[in-house]
Amino acid sequence: MLRALVRALPQEDTIYFGDTARVPYGTKSPDTVIRYAHEIATFLMTHDIKLLVVACNTASAVALPSLRRLLPIPVVGVIEPGARRAVEVTRSGVVGVIGTAGTIRSSAYSRAIKRLNPDISVLAKPCPLFVPLAEEGWIDNDIARLTAHQYLDELRDAGVDSLVLGCTHYPLLKKIIAEVMGPQVALVDSAEETARTVASILQDKKLLRPAVEQGNHHSYVTDVPAGFIRIGNRFLGARLGDVYQVSLDDCRIAVPRGQEP
Amino acid sequence: MLRALVRALPQEDTIYFGDTARVPYGTKSPDTVIRYAHEIATFLMTHDIKLLVVACNTASAVALPSLRRLLPIPVVGVIEPGARRAVEVTRSGVVGVIGTAGTIRSSAYSRAIKRLNPDISVLAKPCPLFVPLAEEGWIDNDIARLTAHQYLDELRDAGVDSLVLGCTHYPLLKKIIAEVMGPQVALVDSAEETARTVASILQDKKLLRPAVEQGNHHSYVTDVPAGFIRIGNRFLGARLGDVYQVSLDDCRIAVPRGQEP
Repeated sequence: MLRALVRALPQEDTIYFGDTARVPYGTKSPDTVIRYAHEIATFLMTHDIKLLVVACNTASAVALPSLRRLLPIPVVGVIEPGARRAVEVTRSGVVGVIGTAGTIRSSAYSRAIKRLNPDISVLAKPCPLFVPLAEEGWIDNDIARLTAHQYLDELRDAGVDSLVLGCTHYPLLKKIIAEVMGPQVALVDSAEETARTVASILQDKKLLRPAVEQGNHHSYVTDVPAGFIRIGNRFLGARLGDVYQVSLDDCRIAVPRGQEP
Repeated sequence: MLRALVRALPQEDTIYFGDTARVPYGTKSPDTVIRYAHEIATFLMTHDIKLLVVACNTASAVALPSLRRLLPIPVVGVIEPGARRAVEVTRSGVVGVIGTAGTIRSSAYSRAIKRLNPDISVLAKPCPLFVPLAEEGWIDNDIARLTAHQYLDELRDAGVDSLVLGCTHYPLLKKIIAEVMGPQVALVDSAEETARTVASILQDKKLLRPAVEQGNHHSYVTDVPAGFIRIGNRFLGARLGDVYQVSLDDCRIAVPRGQEP
């Protein structure tokens, strides 16, 4: 998500918040995800942000309405942009959605797709093994291939021709997902589409920075930064900015990057 | 763990605390695990417990020394009992330990085994896919089998004849782990050994209840109880007691069981 945003809007500053002490969100209840999302949004508002992107599919799926009520700034989730793209590219009228247990249980993608076109059939499937596979780096071995077949064969056999990768980790498994689904199926990565939505909102509201400027980037995490920096480099594909550890209990900045134990 | 304890000491009351909002601990840093363990111990102390079992291997591995300094009651972890059993049963002198990334990185089992017998070789291996496989219920399919081979073949080939299942979830995968390791390898489940340690401490300190009484059991969880009750039944193999949701932010009891949303 951050990579797609920085590519689309290189002139903008970004603050990335990674709740690394409490992830994953995909297995938590809506109540807990909403509480955590509010804590994080409250923290970010103290940093004068002009727009909030909820880049986690699970948090987008359950916490977006209440965040929009609470915050005086635009709040963009990944569900609506992903749903829009999936509806644009399907020809069979059968759209697949894969995500965490929390995202799928929320039916957020199904509802967003039906709002755009009630005639589309949506097949949603939770794929809980995909996150640990991506984190283990097992993205192109027999275990990943068998797991992908176990989850995806029924979607492919049901005629899905547009599949939403409804979790930030899943694009890391794109190669094997494409292999199982076959060349006729379009894989929808919500990040690209969400970046486009952000750009158009900032433009509409005259909040865009002049394109000649160069944005600054930094990150806050809730666990010690070492693991985040290692995995962040794999995800972001670009140099990370400064990374700070923060405790949400008191919003105190604890350990600046490089000084972690 | 709870099942083994209740079987060994049916007359004792138990309070089980499941930090379901923030699990898994295996991927978190030692600092974060220690902080969470202290919060939970503080909460349990307000319930007049006479002994604390740290049933999570990751928390045992990193938080036990500070919990013992902090609390005026006996604190029992799962590492020392598991290590003792592994040392008792090995004949080859090569002991294997599998666990989460956090448990293995801490070297807690290796150190405990070396303290008992410095001549034993310890081969430790993190198996991060085992927890999600167990939670998905994939405990006897090709994916679980391939994953077990990927993690365990090197341990078997190195002559391990005593393997510590160093994570509460792993006994669910016992069948497939035994299949991969072969019949000559003893699998050590820390829970049984820990229950014996608890019984002997309570006896030594004259804290044991008369065996004619029947203990009461209840649980506190940090996420909504529904998921815990479902999975808890699979783990505990017996009727769960009452389950309450609690917020550690203020130690307020939030939602009694059955009234959750």
